[in-house]
Amino acid sequence: MAEQWLAGIDVGGTTIKMAFVSMEGEIIQKWEIPTDVSEGGKHITTHISSSLKHTLKTLGKEEGVLKGIGLGAPGFIEMKTGFIHQAVNIGWKDYPLKDELEKETGLTVTVENDANMAAIGEMWKGAGNGESDLLCVTLGTGVGGGIISNGQIVHGVNGMAGEIGHITSITEGGAACNCGKTGCIETIASATGIARIAAVGMENHRDSSLYDIWKESKTLTAKDVAVEAEKGDAYAAQVLDEITFHLGLVVANLSNAINPGMIVIGGGVSSAGETLLRPLRTHFEKFALPRVAQGAQFAIATLGNDAGVIGGAWLAKQSIK
Amino acid sequence: MAEQWLAGIDVGGTTIKMAFVSMEGEIIQKWEIPTDVSEGGKHITTHISSSLKHTLKTLGKEEGVLKGIGLGAPGFIEMKTGFIHQAVNIGWKDYPLKDELEKETGLTVTVENDANMAAIGEMWKGAGNGESDLLCVTLGTGVGGGIISNGQIVHGVNGMAGEIGHITSITEGGAACNCGKTGCIETIASATGIARIAAVGMENHRDSSLYDIWKESKTLTAKDVAVEAEKGDAYAAQVLDEITFHLGLVVANLSNAINPGMIVIGGGVSSAGETLLRPLRTHFEKFALPRVAQGAQFAIATLGNDAGVIGGAWLAKQSIK
Repeated sequence: MAEQWLAGIDVGGTTIKMAFVSMEGEIIQKWEIPTDVSEGGKHITTHISSSLKHTLKTLGKEEGVLKGIGLGAPGFIEMKTGFIHQAVNIGWKDYPLKDELEKETGLTVTVENDANMAAIGEMWKGAGNGESDLLCVTLGTGVGGGIISNGQIVHGVNGMAGEIGHITSITEGGAACNCGKTGCIETIASATGIARIAAVGMENHRDSSLYDIWKESKTLTAKDVAVEAEKGDAYAAQVLDEITFHLGLVVANLSNAINPGMIVIGGGVSSAGETLLRPLRTHFEKFALPRVAQGAQFAIATLGNDAGVIGGAWLAKQSIK
Repeated sequence: MAEQWLAGIDVGGTTIKMAFVSMEGEIIQKWEIPTDVSEGGKHITTHISSSLKHTLKTLGKEEGVLKGIGLGAPGFIEMKTGFIHQAVNIGWKDYPLKDELEKETGLTVTVENDANMAAIGEMWKGAGNGESDLLCVTLGTGVGGGIISNGQIVHGVNGMAGEIGHITSITEGGAACNCGKTGCIETIASATGIARIAAVGMENHRDSSLYDIWKESKTLTAKDVAVEAEKGDAYAAQVLDEITFHLGLVVANLSNAINPGMIVIGGGVSSAGETLLRPLRTHFEKFALPRVAQGAQFAIATLGNDAGVIGGAWLAKQSIK
């Protein structure tokens, strides 16, 4: 059979990650182009189309080798039609992205929320290992997520599914969240939340190795907390315990409802690896039903920044089946 | 086209509810037979098969009119194979229910968890109104649930999905739950939980109309609480407010993750109707993201005891498509 390639495209506010991916999910070539947010993002589809064609040519391939495109973008997206209600960082507003990119390329385009697309990537080729009931939790500046049930992304009635970051973990007296509520898990388990919680108790823990970092710059990062906890600092471990108590509760509560076979933890905070997973599992098991806990394996995301484009390729593959 | 009927069967510990249902989901005939739990439930499939044939004959129909069977049972079920790991109330243990009933009847049988089957019934012909992203919460002796995403029941990796009753709402100092954990929403929002919570504060609320019921028998029911709250009793309303705070939190947290278009409240407690839904919506809206709250309509289950057999018919219909 003639060679068939898929394109995965991950549109961010600064750069657009692009890749050619094989039908088996292996990256053949990956590159980035800058995101041109001028004039409401109207030039983006032209740039994507030109860049795809140019790169194919550079690789000595006919255009016909490319069979479909899967694209992820941030914002409110109507997945079925590929219509973007609003993508603030890009400039798109009431924009028929799927139609425009299909016109430019002559290929079938599937549009997806970028967090969901990364979850699909992890399901297909990353830590998810093909598991068709999957929960992805991304711990970065914020807390995001993606849920896969019966092998399909859960979008919900208006594309809001997976907003795990805004599950309330502290019902009264929690920190203010960007969403307008208080006590969301994003205020606790994001990189920002971890740094904030560690800083709050700093003056009362001058014996902690975190204090040496703190006193210099009055700044702590989630990474500082993880590194010092790993080295054996008691206060840093206590902070991680508090954070994983809340994250374990949220993930267990959700797991009692959707019973995932795999829980993939991604984002910058996940680089803490077992230092994070160990207390997380302990708290999770307190709140999950025994059979639910039994079924759920924890794993750190493995694809990093490639999760999006690989997920995009999976979507493209589905669309041409 | 020749007439086509579906059979929906809802197996409980005492009775088996059976119905012939049209392809459009209308009940043609419904009846019950006792559940014979003797000898590990081995006679049940024979009884079901005979009863189906006998009832068809009584109605003057050929056996060929019946096209498929959907059956719900309590317990741990492997949905794909229709294998029952254990159904304590029935007596089945490591029992190939689907295979046995298919042998008896010569028809395709789909086996489902009974709570999920009721959720499907509500989705198809009840309060769910065809909505393909649906959350069903059953408030009875316990708290059960069913989740439908993308028009499909969410089973999870080992059939435990929908165990909404065991989502933790009180992390410390909550009441003991039958599952072995504490603070599960089942200990609060079940009929049993509501009665317990009302009784706890009774001696400090002697002016409440609930006290008149309480002093006679030292017993309260969830229905007493709903009735007196509806009549304007302040303490009863306060109890309902406490209960719906927790239920609203749990349902909102779950909704932020799965973004349902409809939330159907069923079970005995749901007969309280608007007296329950009014405070529930208020608390829900505090914890749900605005767009999630916008998308989610609340409704009281409308099919009552028929939800199971109608859901069974839907499953049967899918299997013969």
